[in-house]
Amino acid sequence: MKGLQELYSAKPQLRVCAVNFLNTLPLVWGMVQGPQRGLFELSFTTPAECADRLAMGQAEIGIVPSVELERLKLDILPGAGIACRGPIRSILLISKVAPENIRVLAADAGSRTSVVLAQLILANRYAVRPRLLSRPPELTAMLEEADAAVIIGDPALRLEPASLAYFTLDLGQEWLELTGLPMVFAVWAARRQYVTAELIAAFQDSCRFGRQHLEDIVRAEASRRGIPEMLARHYLHNLLINELGEQEYRGLKVFLERARQLGGRG
Amino acid sequence: MKGLQELYSAKPQLRVCAVNFLNTLPLVWGMVQGPQRGLFELSFTTPAECADRLAMGQAEIGIVPSVELERLKLDILPGAGIACRGPIRSILLISKVAPENIRVLAADAGSRTSVVLAQLILANRYAVRPRLLSRPPELTAMLEEADAAVIIGDPALRLEPASLAYFTLDLGQEWLELTGLPMVFAVWAARRQYVTAELIAAFQDSCRFGRQHLEDIVRAEASRRGIPEMLARHYLHNLLINELGEQEYRGLKVFLERARQLGGRG
Repeated sequence: MKGLQELYSAKPQLRVCAVNFLNTLPLVWGMVQGPQRGLFELSFTTPAECADRLAMGQAEIGIVPSVELERLKLDILPGAGIACRGPIRSILLISKVAPENIRVLAADAGSRTSVVLAQLILANRYAVRPRLLSRPPELTAMLEEADAAVIIGDPALRLEPASLAYFTLDLGQEWLELTGLPMVFAVWAARRQYVTAELIAAFQDSCRFGRQHLEDIVRAEASRRGIPEMLARHYLHNLLINELGEQEYRGLKVFLERARQLGGRG
Repeated sequence: MKGLQELYSAKPQLRVCAVNFLNTLPLVWGMVQGPQRGLFELSFTTPAECADRLAMGQAEIGIVPSVELERLKLDILPGAGIACRGPIRSILLISKVAPENIRVLAADAGSRTSVVLAQLILANRYAVRPRLLSRPPELTAMLEEADAAVIIGDPALRLEPASLAYFTLDLGQEWLELTGLPMVFAVWAARRQYVTAELIAAFQDSCRFGRQHLEDIVRAEASRRGIPEMLARHYLHNLLINELGEQEYRGLKVFLERARQLGGRG
């Protein structure tokens, strides 16, 4: 690995912006604990802020929420991202009323992809187009003002849907039922001049390292994030997909097409 | 897979040019027998011809020998190619004399990367710069005219070096000893406008499918290529690397730098 390090250190270090959720850790684990350590200047923030830092030139490479890809005109670094084929457990729509009766939907402004996904599911499967409220991800406060709330990432994993007196939709499962395809929430992306085979390989290698060390991630991260170890293990091993193949990119393409249609109609 | 097929069939099929060697079959196995079947118009030829077809616009995507990458100004499709970390068995320099005494070297014109690699090894490790003859890959004829011959791919696998009364250098092993790095012989490449995350994923998925079905490749291909099954199995499982990571691209970069220096001095 020393060789690669020398190579990169000849240039100014590229700034990599990642998301501070459990689902992102397998992607960056090689950069945090493994062979890609020290290759990049790594920082963590929310999905929306991550996209903004790339847009403003404050980072060269970042995790970009799917809905932001077209607006930002970035190139995808293929092979690694955040996706699922069915239930994902961390992208939840929680509702006081049956889905077909949702009129007002609260969502965290930090998660535009999930909000668009929730709108697509509600429009296509339940024939409703609720009004949107942007609120911090606190379920009780959200449901005081709205019929339903979208909660994503670690805050979703800290909930126990079965113990709540609400309807819960898993938006990964809903998307699979709607389209038969995986849902891609976010991918690594960068401006084209930074994208080389070598760079892509470093990101894929970091992901492969992370997927090979999921148990280390569970031990180091679950309890300090307030997520039960059993759930974190099940989530990382069985629900979350980090190594993206052609089916995932097909799912991404369909999602972007439908998101565009939604925008056009809205 | 039907989804992807529909997607691609909306556009004219991309033409993919591959090399007709055993080492290329894992890369294309998904396109020949697996989920990527029918996505591309696939043809097989020699490494040099493959590069030429891309250069002349007769194919959009192809296996490109490492030395041709810069000349053709193509983009690498990362994650899949032909490489080794140590002995490879199919890139051989066979010599009637000790390597330091080689004055005339015969090589197949269809394999420029191997010829440059042989020249680098002979210059750097044995301090000789032989004159080159371009000849078809027939060992006996080559060694009638030259001190040594470079034989690659299936013709090399049909030889039994231990039973020959000649010196044999495995150029993969020699490269590892010279640089400590993997050697990359060829990669998938295309002009930039064709390179998308989805396309790259299809090529990586085809490679993954091939690596998961090596035994099928051995059974279907070894004997009809005149390669003993035991050798084909060992070669595919233990010597050949098809899934390229950052160390491979580091090796490729060093090879291209040294090839440029060789050109400059020559």
